[in-house]
Amino acid sequence: MPRIPFNELKAEFKRVLMKKGCDEAKADLSAQLMTETSCDGVYSHGVNRFPRVVEYIDKGYIDLKAQPEKTESFGAFERWNGNLGLGNVNAKLAMDRAIELAREFGIGGVAMGNTNHWLRGGSYGWQAAEAGCVGICWTNTQPNMPAWGAKDRRIGNNPLILAVPREGGHVVVDIAMAQFSYGQMENKAMRGELLPVPGGYDEHGELSCDPKEISKTWRVLPIGYWKGSALAIVMDLVASVLAGGRSTYAIGKLGSDEYSLSQMYIAIDAKRIAGEDYLAAAINEVLDNLHDSVPVDPAQPVRYPGENSLAIRNANLANGIPVDDKVWEKIKSF
Amino acid sequence: MPRIPFNELKAEFKRVLMKKGCDEAKADLSAQLMTETSCDGVYSHGVNRFPRVVEYIDKGYIDLKAQPEKTESFGAFERWNGNLGLGNVNAKLAMDRAIELAREFGIGGVAMGNTNHWLRGGSYGWQAAEAGCVGICWTNTQPNMPAWGAKDRRIGNNPLILAVPREGGHVVVDIAMAQFSYGQMENKAMRGELLPVPGGYDEHGELSCDPKEISKTWRVLPIGYWKGSALAIVMDLVASVLAGGRSTYAIGKLGSDEYSLSQMYIAIDAKRIAGEDYLAAAINEVLDNLHDSVPVDPAQPVRYPGENSLAIRNANLANGIPVDDKVWEKIKSF
Repeated sequence: MPRIPFNELKAEFKRVLMKKGCDEAKADLSAQLMTETSCDGVYSHGVNRFPRVVEYIDKGYIDLKAQPEKTESFGAFERWNGNLGLGNVNAKLAMDRAIELAREFGIGGVAMGNTNHWLRGGSYGWQAAEAGCVGICWTNTQPNMPAWGAKDRRIGNNPLILAVPREGGHVVVDIAMAQFSYGQMENKAMRGELLPVPGGYDEHGELSCDPKEISKTWRVLPIGYWKGSALAIVMDLVASVLAGGRSTYAIGKLGSDEYSLSQMYIAIDAKRIAGEDYLAAAINEVLDNLHDSVPVDPAQPVRYPGENSLAIRNANLANGIPVDDKVWEKIKSF
Repeated sequence: MPRIPFNELKAEFKRVLMKKGCDEAKADLSAQLMTETSCDGVYSHGVNRFPRVVEYIDKGYIDLKAQPEKTESFGAFERWNGNLGLGNVNAKLAMDRAIELAREFGIGGVAMGNTNHWLRGGSYGWQAAEAGCVGICWTNTQPNMPAWGAKDRRIGNNPLILAVPREGGHVVVDIAMAQFSYGQMENKAMRGELLPVPGGYDEHGELSCDPKEISKTWRVLPIGYWKGSALAIVMDLVASVLAGGRSTYAIGKLGSDEYSLSQMYIAIDAKRIAGEDYLAAAINEVLDNLHDSVPVDPAQPVRYPGENSLAIRNANLANGIPVDDKVWEKIKSF
């Protein structure tokens, strides 16, 4: 697998977006976010997802000319219409706006409807943390998971992100409400591997670690069974009603492609509220204690959320970002 | 098991709190919240927990005379010191304050440190929803769960609540980050029953549904394995650093009793932002679709989060609240 330097991968994303009609500033930002995502090791939501982004541009689901617009303001909370613009550019703007509101009011919220897949949600958590803020955000998705107790897929796997700013490496959790993404299960199935823990149900209604068996029912498992299901339902309601945007149900009515999503962004000005020195000391005390955990496997010390991403980022910056040959050929062919 | 009418149970809680030195208004509010919690079927965090509340009052961890105080204000975000007052009274006040801020700014946030166990977290979600707001809140706890990949308990199970207001029954999710609470596992163990899904690890490092085996290691399972572990860690950091309060680690250093917790409260004025009619229609469309799910068990139709609580509430209001004989005797003996 070739390892592509950060700037080369970014330049290629940017070239294709501009060829499709994107202006340079927007293409640069979107390419930067996608390259950072790949550089952090989240290839599924970076380089591997790019062909789908191009497909959606060609189908007209993503409007490269669109600018998001504020539709209503309530002081520290705003509603935005994403106008079906590029998902990661819209998301960056929404979190930027939440951060600006947090600077003014301590806390700021933005609900954005009619937007597109934000690729890696964690990007906007890192963004808030980089600005010294606690960042909380989530998105809904198309229906891709059965509710707890159901056979048919009517709820989304709705990723949730929480981030805390920390000198030396932010603490960021970025989790979908399904135990495994479709991409992860497809990759495992292709390699003939099993999942490390059950990821869904087989045709006999039994929990299974075999992605091929799960793909026969698509009864994927929410995290914590009934708990992740309930959380996904309420997250969808909050984002869609506050944005005045589409719910997972309404997205499903658009067809099998996934667009016009609803998202929530909350920023809290942690550095100002807690004070920079207190913040750093309080967080490091907790992480030091976490690192002192007795590991189940002595070769696998316990890490804080975001610590792996940072390690992969540094390795990929030094050695180049691994990109699948076929994906790389495809991107260069656009 | 006797079924105690709502008002009789509430009067008994109130009597004991006043006997311990609580003023009448505070005793009434605390008793009301505990009775509502029991009435909704969450006995573990209502009537069954009351003897522990009394124990903590006697030990001086809960100060019945204390009033929470605002320590800093940043517009739509405030820091509060709970001054070790009654946990559920403090929590009600914190969410009330977040709601007032949301009325003014669209969104409001309160971080409260140095407070006590809030009993049922869902209460404050129902409270926000009753005020027409989206409510988001969470608390940290003493160390009671190993981080993912660890053997020893250094993180909390940190319950998270999200609520959406809805005429005819709010939509409320209230979940701890452990798959099962200690109380649930102890009850199952006492009855010699197995958990419906794995709740932790046995002495051989294997996932187990047997609460007796799990109690030999106390390696309880976070929801979604690594995912719930990561979420619990970041929730603890957010609440404790924003409140300037104790982290789970710092709570653990106080000893084996659990007090001086940190909590986060966020309210968003959903009725004003979305409009009452839109809100109701948008939510009902989603819930109607959810109810149309094909159930795994035809006798168990799929329900929205909070629907069961409402059904139990109505049954207990009609028939009285079931209270364990021994617990009832104990409460009457205080």
